[in-house]
Amino acid sequence: MIRDFVKTECPQEEELRERLMTARNRLFALQMKLKEHNLPVLVLMEGYGSAGKGSIIGKVIKNIDPRFFKVFSMEKITEEEKRKPFLYRYVTKIPEKGKFVFLDGGWMEEITREQVQGNYKKQEYAKRVQSVKRMERQLTDDGYLVMKFFFTISEKEQKKRLNDLLADKNTKWRVSDYDLWQNKHYEKCQQVFDRYLEETNTSTAPWYLVDSKHKKWAELQVLEHLVEGIETAMENQKVSVPILQNIFPLKKMPKLAEVPLDKTIDQEAYRKELDSLQKRLGELHNELYRKKIPVIIAYEGQDAAGKGGNIKRISEALDPRGYEVHPIASPEPHEKARHYLWRFFNRLPKSGHVAIFDRTWYGRVLVERLEGFCLENDWKRAYNEINEFEKELCDWGAILIKFWVQIDKDTQLERFHLRENTPEKQWKITEEDWRNREKWDQYEKAVDEMIEKTSTEFAPWHILESNDKRYARIQALEIVIQEIEKHL
Amino acid sequence: MIRDFVKTECPQEEELRERLMTARNRLFALQMKLKEHNLPVLVLMEGYGSAGKGSIIGKVIKNIDPRFFKVFSMEKITEEEKRKPFLYRYVTKIPEKGKFVFLDGGWMEEITREQVQGNYKKQEYAKRVQSVKRMERQLTDDGYLVMKFFFTISEKEQKKRLNDLLADKNTKWRVSDYDLWQNKHYEKCQQVFDRYLEETNTSTAPWYLVDSKHKKWAELQVLEHLVEGIETAMENQKVSVPILQNIFPLKKMPKLAEVPLDKTIDQEAYRKELDSLQKRLGELHNELYRKKIPVIIAYEGQDAAGKGGNIKRISEALDPRGYEVHPIASPEPHEKARHYLWRFFNRLPKSGHVAIFDRTWYGRVLVERLEGFCLENDWKRAYNEINEFEKELCDWGAILIKFWVQIDKDTQLERFHLRENTPEKQWKITEEDWRNREKWDQYEKAVDEMIEKTSTEFAPWHILESNDKRYARIQALEIVIQEIEKHL
Repeated sequence: MIRDFVKTECPQEEELRERLMTARNRLFALQMKLKEHNLPVLVLMEGYGSAGKGSIIGKVIKNIDPRFFKVFSMEKITEEEKRKPFLYRYVTKIPEKGKFVFLDGGWMEEITREQVQGNYKKQEYAKRVQSVKRMERQLTDDGYLVMKFFFTISEKEQKKRLNDLLADKNTKWRVSDYDLWQNKHYEKCQQVFDRYLEETNTSTAPWYLVDSKHKKWAELQVLEHLVEGIETAMENQKVSVPILQNIFPLKKMPKLAEVPLDKTIDQEAYRKELDSLQKRLGELHNELYRKKIPVIIAYEGQDAAGKGGNIKRISEALDPRGYEVHPIASPEPHEKARHYLWRFFNRLPKSGHVAIFDRTWYGRVLVERLEGFCLENDWKRAYNEINEFEKELCDWGAILIKFWVQIDKDTQLERFHLRENTPEKQWKITEEDWRNREKWDQYEKAVDEMIEKTSTEFAPWHILESNDKRYARIQALEIVIQEIEKHL
Repeated sequence: MIRDFVKTECPQEEELRERLMTARNRLFALQMKLKEHNLPVLVLMEGYGSAGKGSIIGKVIKNIDPRFFKVFSMEKITEEEKRKPFLYRYVTKIPEKGKFVFLDGGWMEEITREQVQGNYKKQEYAKRVQSVKRMERQLTDDGYLVMKFFFTISEKEQKKRLNDLLADKNTKWRVSDYDLWQNKHYEKCQQVFDRYLEETNTSTAPWYLVDSKHKKWAELQVLEHLVEGIETAMENQKVSVPILQNIFPLKKMPKLAEVPLDKTIDQEAYRKELDSLQKRLGELHNELYRKKIPVIIAYEGQDAAGKGGNIKRISEALDPRGYEVHPIASPEPHEKARHYLWRFFNRLPKSGHVAIFDRTWYGRVLVERLEGFCLENDWKRAYNEINEFEKELCDWGAILIKFWVQIDKDTQLERFHLRENTPEKQWKITEEDWRNREKWDQYEKAVDEMIEKTSTEFAPWHILESNDKRYARIQALEIVIQEIEKHL
């Protein structure tokens, strides 16, 4: 792409000035419309070192009120970020609805640098590109405008700029080792950049190459593309997007109605099993920590199915310094303003830690679907989005265990009554629980569909038979231990 | 303290079991009351390495629902945290109202380790202790329960435990170099611990020494103190606390009514000045970045005083990779649930970066005071709390510049009308602005009091004369440049 890029002529001084003024005013006027349209805009600035990404961002944001944008400079990966999945540091920075985020160097920079310097193992590059394509598609499907700019300069121009920066003690820190390396290996870099640009040039998030020789001309190219991109996106909002076919191998799962719920365990056997399984899990936790393997345990289930008590029997066995339980309620305003997976990305464990989710990202295809909190197109798309999200976690090296805690309708009624009649348990039962119960059949249908469509080979559901809570606890501990042992 | 600590006898097996059961049940029952009382509980676990802090936390949280607590293990300081003030990593972890946070090793561990290993420069230890005492007092004044436990074991017992841990490959990673160092320098450590405990043993956040030889006995001591602490705190809620006398040297400031507002600057002189000042500020930004000095610029002012445009003339001069503008609106639910300074701690710049606040922590003594969003005792206490907060920032090395942007009442009216009559400006004017205008005199009184009480020598207010916006912009740029130059 870079090689074939037809550099357009920079217009004459007067035309340039006029068009710049027009574009700036249009952007200024658009910022309020963005807000009205609830359109989130993610602008990715990539390109050669010293091509002027930073200074162009500085010029673009002059036209936007500080309330409406954030700029992130993707500096060196921190130790904390290294202990998270590859996409973590990028996904956590996506804008809220109605706002801009500008990324000064992003995932392209990281991927192409690692690739051109030969740091990737076999297949790793391809995997990264795939992750990025999935992320970009998930964002645009969700209504994000993703604008990607690549700033080009010639080898000679780059050399000149680097030398100028190095000559001044106040600017020489701006020149990174990688910038210098890039200039030395200009041809090689161009090949890698080109390949990446080709591979990620999608119809919903295309690349814009920017001829960066002249600063004002570069600014104008960015402004004009940006303004057009925003205007088009505002026209196209709320368009339903295609539901992708599943490409992940699935495990055959039973329907909930076929799950037997008659198994029980007596008190004595329970205590014995519990003690020995918790002890074993405690030992494994040490080993996980030492080997820096992250574990994610996800719980879903009917109200009063016994999730809380089940989680407790797992967490009791763990070192409190190495795990966290995330109770998931309805999203806070700043969470609702972003892609629904955002708040889960923010709660991922560090490598070596355990995160237990009491309700999960599956809310999208359960409560959000049934209560109409999202559009039909949204929850239908979610099965694939979730499979992709979980694939990302497993590729990162996480052990992901998903539990559906199952009870029958009579058992739920009994437990609801027990809660109402026990003072310390009353806070656990609300009007909402009764309302949900009325939709029992609809929920069952949705759960069946969820289990069928998201039981991938790498992250299948496990159904816990929880009419006897103690039986389900032992079942859960056994599965967790088994899954961990498989990975060690 | 440790030396004189009268170790109590561990009770007999049966009594121990009974008291443990009682204490656990009390804690279990208290968690819901905590919620009702909106009481935040911060539990600090400190002590000798391998004294069992972590395992006691594990036992205590067994009695609490995961929705109501978080555990933080204060591991090594990250690179990110090193670029923030000392208190940052602790303050950002305080609990929400109605919830627990357990810190496994906290500020005491950091301070005493640095002290005993001789890493502190002169006065640094005393400064740290002072910071901690202020923070603890601010939290308890705000209604937090701060429970501090120190776990003691003998030199011999510690050695035995460390050796046991080292002998097993799955647990040997738990032994840190500092643990071993501690055991080798047991006496010396005890002296430093003792001095710290004495110095920070305050009436509102006292220390509890825990004899940690026997695990169950240690658990019981913690549980009983914790339960008693919570019960007492719930009885004492909403007690007004003393307003501390100011101890920071103050600068004499004029009343707002005395500020002349007749100065203007003509268009041509403005453009010239603006260009040259922005150029200079851009150069200084490079230098700040290189020397890793953080800059915080705080803006307050009447509605329509011209804060936004003023901020813009500063930010335009800065490299977008090195600054952030924080528009401060009313707090989100998770922010309101914590100490009011919490959300500002979370927005502090990294060293070398600039943070510009469009409205600030002074909301406490302005809008919160006048609209009754906090109690009288709260805002009266805030002058000192804010001075302490700003002292912390300055001690960290930050350049802190505070602007009050001043206009007169007629000018505001003119600008309100202009906003109403200009389509692109209409979003800037709301009913609230008109309501605030009605309270002009009350606000003026509050601002006068604020400026008088918080113009410390280290962080005085600067009043910008903004009837002519352009005049005020030049004034602001000059002051920012001056303040930065003073520090370089």
